[in-house]
Amino acid sequence: MAAGLQLESFDKLVSDALSGADLDEFNRIYYGRTSHHELEVKAANLEQAQKNNFDIEAYDFPAQEEDTRSPRIVKIGIIQHCIATSTSKPIQAQRQAIFDKILPIIECAGNEGVNVLCLIEAWSMPFAFCTREKAPWCQFAECAETGPSVQFLQNLAIKYNMVIISPILERDETHGDTIWNTAVVINECGKIIGKHRKNHIPRVGDFNESTYYFEGNTGHPVFDTKYGKIAINICYGRHHPQNWLMFGINGAEIVFNPSATVGGLSEHLWSIEARNAAIANSFFTCAINRVGREEFPNEFTSGDGKPAHKDFGHFFGSSYITAPDGSRTPGLSRIKDGLLIAQVDLNLCRQVKDKWGFRMTQRLDYYAGLIKKAAEIDYKPQVVSGN
Amino acid sequence: MAAGLQLESFDKLVSDALSGADLDEFNRIYYGRTSHHELEVKAANLEQAQKNNFDIEAYDFPAQEEDTRSPRIVKIGIIQHCIATSTSKPIQAQRQAIFDKILPIIECAGNEGVNVLCLIEAWSMPFAFCTREKAPWCQFAECAETGPSVQFLQNLAIKYNMVIISPILERDETHGDTIWNTAVVINECGKIIGKHRKNHIPRVGDFNESTYYFEGNTGHPVFDTKYGKIAINICYGRHHPQNWLMFGINGAEIVFNPSATVGGLSEHLWSIEARNAAIANSFFTCAINRVGREEFPNEFTSGDGKPAHKDFGHFFGSSYITAPDGSRTPGLSRIKDGLLIAQVDLNLCRQVKDKWGFRMTQRLDYYAGLIKKAAEIDYKPQVVSGN
Repeated sequence: MAAGLQLESFDKLVSDALSGADLDEFNRIYYGRTSHHELEVKAANLEQAQKNNFDIEAYDFPAQEEDTRSPRIVKIGIIQHCIATSTSKPIQAQRQAIFDKILPIIECAGNEGVNVLCLIEAWSMPFAFCTREKAPWCQFAECAETGPSVQFLQNLAIKYNMVIISPILERDETHGDTIWNTAVVINECGKIIGKHRKNHIPRVGDFNESTYYFEGNTGHPVFDTKYGKIAINICYGRHHPQNWLMFGINGAEIVFNPSATVGGLSEHLWSIEARNAAIANSFFTCAINRVGREEFPNEFTSGDGKPAHKDFGHFFGSSYITAPDGSRTPGLSRIKDGLLIAQVDLNLCRQVKDKWGFRMTQRLDYYAGLIKKAAEIDYKPQVVSGN
Repeated sequence: MAAGLQLESFDKLVSDALSGADLDEFNRIYYGRTSHHELEVKAANLEQAQKNNFDIEAYDFPAQEEDTRSPRIVKIGIIQHCIATSTSKPIQAQRQAIFDKILPIIECAGNEGVNVLCLIEAWSMPFAFCTREKAPWCQFAECAETGPSVQFLQNLAIKYNMVIISPILERDETHGDTIWNTAVVINECGKIIGKHRKNHIPRVGDFNESTYYFEGNTGHPVFDTKYGKIAINICYGRHHPQNWLMFGINGAEIVFNPSATVGGLSEHLWSIEARNAAIANSFFTCAINRVGREEFPNEFTSGDGKPAHKDFGHFFGSSYITAPDGSRTPGLSRIKDGLLIAQVDLNLCRQVKDKWGFRMTQRLDYYAGLIKKAAEIDYKPQVVSGN
């Protein structure tokens, strides 16, 4: 990297600098396996990617053969992208520009045989919650069941026989016009099988989301799709291990974490949290982040004593997928749109449960009692005097 | 690294290969800060270390100044070491050899002004639980209050005005001669202020500890010492986020994770779990692992279809400390004894809580109810049909 340039990829930084046995050791310790098990991507898709300026990477996570179960091979796809036009354009124009730019990426996913696809948090809009302005941004909110984003994706789900998770800003007209941060799950027939609302809402940095919507009221649903049991832990929920835990308890085999997070705040946490969740719960996790710097028409402050400004600092991409055994893919670019594919054998989840036994040894009933007590207003922490 | 040699250090592998802006970017993204904030170690201690073949590294974790609280600067020390003589020698001889080798390391910690020191899990013995033999290994078990390891450390605690955490194999004569995996906390006056027994016991690989002792019955105590509120999450407990959570709820500012874990099993998980716990709970965590390969007199099998053998594969050291903001020190060596020191300002814990708000947004009462239900025998997972 030349000084002053934005680093393209954490992973390439290291793999370009190491080779031979050194690179093998780095890969073994950092990624959890010496080889990345790269899969070939079709030439036509690579061309499509180059033409539209996005990356495609594909990796394999096999499992051991079993006598009593056939392999359950599923192709997971995750897409990271930046917004597509100025945030001062009309709402419909901004959304349409994103539809136009994301279409060839979704087509590539479909042509690669992806079975379950997930987009970034609030994928069809800029992450305008930094502004604390209600207008015009609330107009991006749409009905989970009939909104334009969902309609756009339903057709693609049918065309490619693909489950698509669409994280949007939801408008709930039947409950007081409330707004929610919601992931809509569309099955391979284009049917909306359900939705999940973000369980934990941040109050940190420019993430003023609690100004717009409340903590989710949809519990921890697991969607039992044709391609496996999937769940969605939206963005800031990744900081809360109990959130991941409940998706695991409800049987999730793949948990998607559609996110929007920026460099100065969380980049050193990014590779840790979704990966730890995969390890602790013996499921696959997919950490998906948006890309780019977003400028807004009016200035806003960040609650950090610094001058007012108009930009939401760098969304660093770096989306990655972790297997239940803790091994992971390299991350996508820090600065460029991309499609990351993992071909996984879902049998690995139970195989890791059998190996490590975390579900057996977690003492759930014990913690249920402890946490109940801890939540009471008159809780007395277990403290031992040091004298 | 020349091919075929055991890698000395993951951290040095990378820092030797990168420089300038590339190294800065690696450090920022991987460690969470561009500079490691290294502290100088006294020349006499470096000499002592070289003479006795161990490393010393020291780092600083400052906090912001506050109007209402003075800084609370504490020096944490953690020691990693291998055993010191053959496992076929008499028990007392094996233990004494470890006392002799660890003494100069503890002296260095004292001379560097370490306030709170923690050793590896079962530090005064080989990790013989792989064998499933009761004799002679159970003879290492000692009274938490009066055993030889504790007596040895009490004198050093007084001499250096230092809190010492001594993780041992405990014999509880008053409760049926039971054996426990226990950390004893000795205060700076040499008084034993309490103990904690390992909450989660593994059944994985060569970790046949459930053959010897049961899940701990001491809850999640936090020891309110002269140098801050400390707790101990012993080894396999690091895989369970609820265990870390309860120490945080009880007010811990530093949680030590004395461990014994090996390369083939967990090396790619090692940098993730204790670090995630620091992030999720806004406290310091100290991940401490033993070093070296341990050979036993009689052969044993590992439940993996492979032939019987006499060695417990490589304990990889790599001990490290993470701050509540997720930044961390480099790890100690993978193959050599070492002392890692972190000078920390404990005010950082509350500052990070204020910044990120995880304790506010964690919805503890909500999860108390969910986990209670999930632990019931007739629990119905929240599953949505995909059709």
